[in-house]
Amino acid sequence: MPAKAIRPHRIDGRKGVGPLIPPLTESQRPLRQQVFELVRAAGLIPRVQVAKDLDVSPATVTTISSELIEAGLIEEVAAPRDGEPGRGRPAVALGVRAAAHRVAGMKLSDREHTAVIVDFAGNLIADDAIPRQPGPMSLIEILDAIETLLTRVCAKAGIDRSALSAVGIGVPGFVDCAEGVALWSSVLADRSVPLAAAASARLGLPVTIDNDANLVALAELWFGAGRSLSDFAVVTIEHGVGMGFVMNHRIYRGAQRVGMELGHTKVQLDGALCRCGQRGCLEAYIADYALAREATTALNWGHKESQPINVLLESLYDHAKAGNATAKSIFRRAGRYLAVGLSNVVNLFDPSLIILSGERMRYDYLYAAETLDEMDNLTINTGRPRPPIEIHAWGDLLWAHGAAALALSAVTEAILTGQALRTAAE
Amino acid sequence: MPAKAIRPHRIDGRKGVGPLIPPLTESQRPLRQQVFELVRAAGLIPRVQVAKDLDVSPATVTTISSELIEAGLIEEVAAPRDGEPGRGRPAVALGVRAAAHRVAGMKLSDREHTAVIVDFAGNLIADDAIPRQPGPMSLIEILDAIETLLTRVCAKAGIDRSALSAVGIGVPGFVDCAEGVALWSSVLADRSVPLAAAASARLGLPVTIDNDANLVALAELWFGAGRSLSDFAVVTIEHGVGMGFVMNHRIYRGAQRVGMELGHTKVQLDGALCRCGQRGCLEAYIADYALAREATTALNWGHKESQPINVLLESLYDHAKAGNATAKSIFRRAGRYLAVGLSNVVNLFDPSLIILSGERMRYDYLYAAETLDEMDNLTINTGRPRPPIEIHAWGDLLWAHGAAALALSAVTEAILTGQALRTAAE
Repeated sequence: MPAKAIRPHRIDGRKGVGPLIPPLTESQRPLRQQVFELVRAAGLIPRVQVAKDLDVSPATVTTISSELIEAGLIEEVAAPRDGEPGRGRPAVALGVRAAAHRVAGMKLSDREHTAVIVDFAGNLIADDAIPRQPGPMSLIEILDAIETLLTRVCAKAGIDRSALSAVGIGVPGFVDCAEGVALWSSVLADRSVPLAAAASARLGLPVTIDNDANLVALAELWFGAGRSLSDFAVVTIEHGVGMGFVMNHRIYRGAQRVGMELGHTKVQLDGALCRCGQRGCLEAYIADYALAREATTALNWGHKESQPINVLLESLYDHAKAGNATAKSIFRRAGRYLAVGLSNVVNLFDPSLIILSGERMRYDYLYAAETLDEMDNLTINTGRPRPPIEIHAWGDLLWAHGAAALALSAVTEAILTGQALRTAAE
Repeated sequence: MPAKAIRPHRIDGRKGVGPLIPPLTESQRPLRQQVFELVRAAGLIPRVQVAKDLDVSPATVTTISSELIEAGLIEEVAAPRDGEPGRGRPAVALGVRAAAHRVAGMKLSDREHTAVIVDFAGNLIADDAIPRQPGPMSLIEILDAIETLLTRVCAKAGIDRSALSAVGIGVPGFVDCAEGVALWSSVLADRSVPLAAAASARLGLPVTIDNDANLVALAELWFGAGRSLSDFAVVTIEHGVGMGFVMNHRIYRGAQRVGMELGHTKVQLDGALCRCGQRGCLEAYIADYALAREATTALNWGHKESQPINVLLESLYDHAKAGNATAKSIFRRAGRYLAVGLSNVVNLFDPSLIILSGERMRYDYLYAAETLDEMDNLTINTGRPRPPIEIHAWGDLLWAHGAAALALSAVTEAILTGQALRTAAE
């Protein structure tokens, strides 16, 4: 499939005759990116603070911020002075120029596909979702779904698809984001699908794909709790168990981009059967399907096999709350295994924060006091306090927002390195 | 404890009137370090290759290498031209200036303490070891041991202690290398011991400490298989189970520097008792003491409790080789749990290589074909090949070499950043 280079799209009337900034030498490149990332993470930040935070001279910050303003990436904003109302002229801060670009982010899942359109500062412009029948899809089917969803969310935003600079797509399963290949995914019938290139060709836009849990971590890094943190873990529990890890302000993906498969780490030799075919995976004790198969036994629902999994889990939860001992024991065991998984994350990664995310977080057994106690009992006493755990029970919109951050990231990197984003030709 | 700044020591007659290089601006700093690290990793490398590898101009490399030569860190070496003997003048390559500094590295362990002295290029000048009685020591006892060992190894090298630029010390257990504190160690009776400052005050030299498994990883990164790799894992099996992880050419230590405790990740809920007091730790299935307690049962050695653990394990190994089914089952189970631990490392970190290190590696059951098969069965099939596994059955000398690399690293960083290494005053 031949590829043709396109320029990052500009939506502000200035013509995009990129590279928008002259190519950087290697030694300049990191600093320009550092300045931009600091501004993005801070929201609004005075130049003097940038100089302080990066330990560079104010003159250097002035030079680099001028280049970034000239390139349309950031802008000067009059910022209120804390505690000094009306005194002198207002301070000037740097902020990301929201109007510079628009991108779309999508989360593909077993139950529905979700999409958002955001501006360059990450502000939500529109969102939409389309339900789907569970089960793997062919590449053609998933491209149809992607295109349909994109058309709908663009209509909601009142813009043409061509007004987008890039599209980011989150896919469950094993995804090589560098090669744009979905190695295996529960939503795809085939292995090793070149989804990024195929979607790019279909949409006529640059497309980047990644594992969906990585994108939740990216959303936290760009828009959430991770703005001020350099190293933290995000653990997601839904249809499966995923993990994203931010290390030194970047998503860590592994040498072959297939790391962080927390759901398939083994917590018991010859243990419970996982849908991956192996035994003893963490996922096989705490993911939806693991609870559902025990619920079928506990609630004597063997004959109601056509019942949707959500209905089954809701009923199990209701029974547990009503005092059903078997139902409670199912959640209790899941909580204990989650404690094992989380303590292993702490013992290995020593993160500054663990964020629990995903739909299952509304089942509070997962982070009940006894689960956290169990986790403390399983975390080795190094003499340092256990990292805090936060529950972010956000829905698919957050995941789609993370996919949008992936697209923003691709646009930014292309501009800062003076390279063009590519769209595959169909 | 007050600290006085000392300058990195120079052993070549030039006076050390540091900072040896003018302080760098933030944007220059990474590049100068990159050039030095590339030269160090390469051994000998032509300037043109440095420019190519770092994607910078030859003029930039000329400027930076002149600064590094002027600072005495690297030197020009006439390199043989491959395949062109005698043609024209010899090519000139850059190499680390071996004579620039000497440092000592030490490994403290339950059985003996080992030390090396190496030059700035990592070449071994002398080594020595002193045996010890097992069990935790007081701070005074361990400082005595450190000083005795340093005096002996300096005598072997024919140098005075003051000729050393720095000392690196590897300690088993939980070590905060940034603060120089041994939070917990099997060789120390107390928790939270400020070992780096105490040893520095005693020796009159800058001292850096770290977890011993991290130092095996550092030794591999500086002198071994890791010279050409950016991301790899080292798993050590001895008295305990340790792990070091190199990520983007650096040791990853965690937010509070207490990560990578693979030995205490849980592989079984409510499983075997670990010497840490928790249950189900990987270590409780494969470390020396775990094998020893099963061996005592299997070989009916309950009455020979005073037997050293090494004798017991040797006997167990001999029985297994002679066909004793119980002895074989002990090794077999340990191998299976090692497979669980290694597969979890692959599932989470996706390293480009796993190096197995430590004394136990001569028990080949640990990496027998069936262990690797088991590991393959426990590693999730992502569509990417499983990373290779190498066995490096090196002894304590390698660990001490890693500690020397830590000291070299401290010396290099102090010079490249224009800061002075510090020695604590006693």
